[in-house]
Amino acid sequence: MPSQTDDLVHDDDVAVAADFLDYLRENSLDPPGVSRASFGPGERMAHARLAEVARCLGLVLQTDFVGNLFVTQPGWDPSLPVVMIGSHLDAVPHGGNFDGAAGVAIGLGVLAGLRRRGARPARGVTLLAIRAEEMSWFPTHYIGSRAGFGLLPADALENVFRFDSGRSLASHMAEEGFEPERVAKGEASLVAAKIHAYIEPHIEQGPVLVDAGIAVGIVTGIRGNVRYRHCSVRGTYGHAGAVPRVARRDAVMAATAFVQEIEGYWLAQEAAGADFVATVGQFFTSASQHTITKIPGEVHFTLDMRSENNAVLMAAHAHLSIKAREIAEARHVSIDLGPHTHAQAATMDGDLRARLRRLAVAHGIPAMELPSGGGHDCATFANQGVPSAMVFIRNDKGSHNPDEAMEIADMAQALRLVAALVDEIAF
Amino acid sequence: MPSQTDDLVHDDDVAVAADFLDYLRENSLDPPGVSRASFGPGERMAHARLAEVARCLGLVLQTDFVGNLFVTQPGWDPSLPVVMIGSHLDAVPHGGNFDGAAGVAIGLGVLAGLRRRGARPARGVTLLAIRAEEMSWFPTHYIGSRAGFGLLPADALENVFRFDSGRSLASHMAEEGFEPERVAKGEASLVAAKIHAYIEPHIEQGPVLVDAGIAVGIVTGIRGNVRYRHCSVRGTYGHAGAVPRVARRDAVMAATAFVQEIEGYWLAQEAAGADFVATVGQFFTSASQHTITKIPGEVHFTLDMRSENNAVLMAAHAHLSIKAREIAEARHVSIDLGPHTHAQAATMDGDLRARLRRLAVAHGIPAMELPSGGGHDCATFANQGVPSAMVFIRNDKGSHNPDEAMEIADMAQALRLVAALVDEIAF
Repeated sequence: MPSQTDDLVHDDDVAVAADFLDYLRENSLDPPGVSRASFGPGERMAHARLAEVARCLGLVLQTDFVGNLFVTQPGWDPSLPVVMIGSHLDAVPHGGNFDGAAGVAIGLGVLAGLRRRGARPARGVTLLAIRAEEMSWFPTHYIGSRAGFGLLPADALENVFRFDSGRSLASHMAEEGFEPERVAKGEASLVAAKIHAYIEPHIEQGPVLVDAGIAVGIVTGIRGNVRYRHCSVRGTYGHAGAVPRVARRDAVMAATAFVQEIEGYWLAQEAAGADFVATVGQFFTSASQHTITKIPGEVHFTLDMRSENNAVLMAAHAHLSIKAREIAEARHVSIDLGPHTHAQAATMDGDLRARLRRLAVAHGIPAMELPSGGGHDCATFANQGVPSAMVFIRNDKGSHNPDEAMEIADMAQALRLVAALVDEIAF
Repeated sequence: MPSQTDDLVHDDDVAVAADFLDYLRENSLDPPGVSRASFGPGERMAHARLAEVARCLGLVLQTDFVGNLFVTQPGWDPSLPVVMIGSHLDAVPHGGNFDGAAGVAIGLGVLAGLRRRGARPARGVTLLAIRAEEMSWFPTHYIGSRAGFGLLPADALENVFRFDSGRSLASHMAEEGFEPERVAKGEASLVAAKIHAYIEPHIEQGPVLVDAGIAVGIVTGIRGNVRYRHCSVRGTYGHAGAVPRVARRDAVMAATAFVQEIEGYWLAQEAAGADFVATVGQFFTSASQHTITKIPGEVHFTLDMRSENNAVLMAAHAHLSIKAREIAEARHVSIDLGPHTHAQAATMDGDLRARLRRLAVAHGIPAMELPSGGGHDCATFANQGVPSAMVFIRNDKGSHNPDEAMEIADMAQALRLVAALVDEIAF
């Protein structure tokens, strides 16, 4: 494997990062893939390993009340807000090793480089290993970063349950030795005014960098989402041959018309230059009632819409709610989109993006800009007013599956870019 | 319950028919509804009861090698082809009591009227109780009538299995005392040249007569069908937020576009005055793989198209096959409509229809013409060249479910119309 090194990043720093990832993989294997449960054994193992490596490097460690681990190279002026690099160490069941962990590994590589050089920045440089980012364990988003800012709603502690154990978030937090009661009180370990910049490296979860043949991405914004988990169309079951079209209340015809309406709206957004994607991931007639010779009386489906722009999401929600009513009325069915959740989109800091673009060119790092389709803790920081940036690493075959395929050489390029940014803003 | 009687039909004849139906219901209850398995206990019970009542009425009985029961009032000229009234006695699992049985009951009422009047027609009048019409037990159509004409493919005997027992058609036939080996040889108990006319009364399976407020229907034709039981669309699963639209291979977007294409074709057929209906009864993403946050990579669906006109069905098949390829190509997915089956449409005899229309007016029976959306044994007779007619009885809430709701007063009207036709063509 060819590696590129310069003053900022040495092969040894990349090796620290790569070895960390190897250790995590070996100790969280759960074929096919790895599993690192949020507030569970896998995440615990990863935090313990990070602490072990950080101590070896002579860094300062601190764990907050919710289990977020702060690993810091102190600056010479402790009054200055710190530069923070962060990501998470939990991983979806039977997923890949790099989603989350690669970002922490890069932070570790940056800190290893500072130690190796004996560098003494003005600002502290903190690597933050964030708890419980993956929604597949506890179905609520950004647990660790929201709790760190004192923003996690208290009721989530008792009313959100881990899918495998059925036990509450508070119960699992307490089991790991943390303090849900301080989360409930809204205490904060993260304060926006004390963070100069937040940088989150992460593998890309889509195909854009692979398709473009470019190793590193500079994120323009993190798409927020509006999600409908329980959409339903209800019509009337009937004889497939004996009911004239006008007398039918066909749930599939109505639901497919609505899905096509979503796609039409999407095309219009694209034409207008708005950032927007939409996905109907689940769509099903009733397995206990449907047959080939019955007009379908019931359809259930989901809808996930994302945009970098919250106004686009709100407009889509309003437009499609109206269209659902129109289609329902025209086709004599009921369409219920059900409750929806809304995760705010986040804008990446323009100054940090400009620095990253310039530094990539200066250091010969192949990079391009792209939006983040997935949500990340970085959105919490950005929406709290922390100047924030994300750096993506080219990754084949998506994430959240055992086939994700990041090359260590590409991670080394992202590590160089983040190190260059830290050198520029922390010293 | 008000009843109308005249010379042809007496209250006692209606009572014979209604009592027969009551007996069947009481002896095949399987809440919610009734079950009368093809070549099983329910059908056996119904045939035994018909034989018992027919013997009481002094009629001539004969059972063929496949179990079809011929109940005949002989004519004075045995050389003349007979007038036949037919329907089936099996019933779908947990279905209604009237689908099939009401037609046999009407035939029994007509014969009871002939016996009561001491009438001696020139032609024999035969009530045919046909075996195994409901495809829900054995998934192949018109078993009894096709076997009667020597048309049931021999391989169906060993390769079609009853859904509940898993045993072959031949095995169940033999268990009931019939002779599958004679079916395999293509022997015939029905010969088109020996049937002057075939009349099948049946409850309507759609809402047309209820919506029109008319008790009796005169069928214009029996819709044939083209059925695709295993359509699939295959794309690629992906991250719902991170993959741009143009890079997606979204199975739901493609499949919903195809379903809307079907509906568009349907509207064009309606505008052109062609008889056509289409139903996508099943449509589902993969329960083991789909989630709200994943681009769906797989959809399965069914398609059932029906028309009185076989040319319309063949044109629809050709058109939609092309559209499936176009949509697949444009959206970078594969669309496989899978194998299809084709049941021929059947035209009802123009002379018999005209007689029925005239007789309805003459006897003050409220009647209208309509197509039959469901398939019936009558299609076998018509396609063998037997002049054939169907008379529908108003029925609320469809058939094949325990809520079907035929009024005995409406059945009495249909009985009068059939008796009038028999009187006109058998004497």
